Amino acid sequence: MPRTAAALIIGNEILTGKIQEANLAYLGQELFKLGIVLERAVVCRDDVDVIAEDLNGLRADHDFVFTSGGVGPTHDDLTMPSIAKAFGVALVRAPEIETLIRGYHKDRVTDDHLRMADIPEGSKLFANEDVPWPTVAIENVFIFPGVPEIFRLKFPILRPHLADGRSFFSRAVYTNCDEGEIAALLGEAAQGNPELFIGSYPRFRGQDYRLKVTVDGEDEADVDAALDAIIAGLPADKIVRVD
Amino acid sequence: MPRTAAALIIGNEILTGKIQEANLAYLGQELFKLGIVLERAVVCRDDVDVIAEDLNGLRADHDFVFTSGGVGPTHDDLTMPSIAKAFGVALVRAPEIETLIRGYHKDRVTDDHLRMADIPEGSKLFANEDVPWPTVAIENVFIFPGVPEIFRLKFPILRPHLADGRSFFSRAVYTNCDEGEIAALLGEAAQGNPELFIGSYPRFRGQDYRLKVTVDGEDEADVDAALDAIIAGLPADKIVRVD
Repeated sequence: MPRTAAALIIGNEILTGKIQEANLAYLGQELFKLGIVLERAVVCRDDVDVIAEDLNGLRADHDFVFTSGGVGPTHDDLTMPSIAKAFGVALVRAPEIETLIRGYHKDRVTDDHLRMADIPEGSKLFANEDVPWPTVAIENVFIFPGVPEIFRLKFPILRPHLADGRSFFSRAVYTNCDEGEIAALLGEAAQGNPELFIGSYPRFRGQDYRLKVTVDGEDEADVDAALDAIIAGLPADKIVRVD
Repeated sequence: MPRTAAALIIGNEILTGKIQEANLAYLGQELFKLGIVLERAVVCRDDVDVIAEDLNGLRADHDFVFTSGGVGPTHDDLTMPSIAKAFGVALVRAPEIETLIRGYHKDRVTDDHLRMADIPEGSKLFANEDVPWPTVAIENVFIFPGVPEIFRLKFPILRPHLADGRSFFSRAVYTNCDEGEIAALLGEAAQGNPELFIGSYPRFRGQDYRLKVTVDGEDEADVDAALDAIIAGLPADKIVRVD
C-alpha cells in the first residue's frame, strides 16, 4: 500500500474567497512524485480548537500531514499554538529562529515578530544553506506558511526525508470523445485494475481535445498495459495524442 | 448568529493536482454576499463511503452544504449515489433530466449518459429558462458540478432561495507596514470587536502595498468604526489607500 497524506489548510481568507488557495495542487503533485497519495484536504478557519481537532483527526488517519497557513505574527496566526495544543505540548521559543528574526528586523524587532520563533516543544527543524528559514515538523506533521512562493521554496528541502524510493507512474490519452460515450470502457478498465487510478477529465477551456483519460499507479508496466487496453477500445479517429 | 455553510469538494484529480480547484473562492465570496459564513471545506477522494461520511458530518454541523464535482457519467462520478447513501434513500431517475439528456444526445444517447439523470429520492430541482439543466438539492445539501464555468452558471439561480435579507460588509486598508509591526494594533481591534472578522494579508505578488488589513461584519457602522480605529493607529505615511 502506498503511504498516505492529508493537508490542513488554515485561514478564514481562503474560506471567504479573499485569497485563492494555491498550495494544494502543488502539494498533491509533489507527493505523487514521491509515491505518497494525498487522500484528503481540510480547509478550516482560524480557531485554535478547530485547528487542533482537525489536526488530531488527520494525523491519526494518515502517514503525513502538511499544514498551510496561519504562521505569521498577527492575532489570526494560530497554527503553532493550535498544533502544540493538539499534541499536548508547550510552545517554546526556538533560538535558531529567534536569531534569524533578530538578524532580519534588527532594532525594529517587535514581540510579535519574535512570536514567530515559538514552536511546539519536541519539533524538528528542516533547513539548508539556500533556505535558512526552517520548516517546523512535529512527529508526522509538517508546518508550512500559506504564501505560495514560500511554500514552494521550502517543500523541496523535505523531499529526501519523505522519499522511500517509490514513485507513481502516470500516463494519459487525449481524446475527442465525450464521457458518456466511453464511460463503459473506462469502468471496465477500473474494475479490471483495482490497484490503478483511472480518471477522465473533460477539457476546461480552449484545448485541442475534449476529454483527457489518465492512468496512475505504482507499477509502470501495469500502467502502460491499462492505458494500451483503453486506447485499443477508443474510436481511432477520436484519439488526439498519447502522453 | 449568521448562517453557516460547508463545501465538500469531490475528486481525486484535485488531490493529485491534475486539476486546480477553482470553485471554493467563488463560493466563499458568493455566500459572504448573502450573509452566510463558509466555515469549512473538505476535499475528498472518489469513494462512496468517504463521500457519504463526510457529507453526513458536514450537513449536521452547518446550515448549508455545497458539493462540487463527481456528477459526470463515468465510473469515478460517485456523488449522487454517495449522497443517496448518506441520506439513506434510493437513487431514482428524474424524468425532467432524462428528457434534457435525450434531447441533447438524441440517438447517440448511452446508458451512462442517462445515469446522469439518477438523483437521490426526495431531491428538489432548481432551474430557470436561461439555465435549464437543474441544480439538484436534498434537504440542506446543494449538488454542483466541478467544472468552474458550469458552477458559476448554476449558482446564481439559488441566490433568491438562500437570501434572507442579511449580508456582510467588508472594508480594507492597504498599507506598507509589515505584519509584526502592527500585530499588536490588530490584536487589540480583534479583541475589542469579537463580532467582527479582522484579517491581515501580506501581498502575494507585484502590488502597490505590502499588507492588506480587512474588517468584515454584519453591522456596517461597527465595521466602519473598527476600520477607522485601525487607521488611526497606523503610521500615516504607510497608508497606501482605503477601500
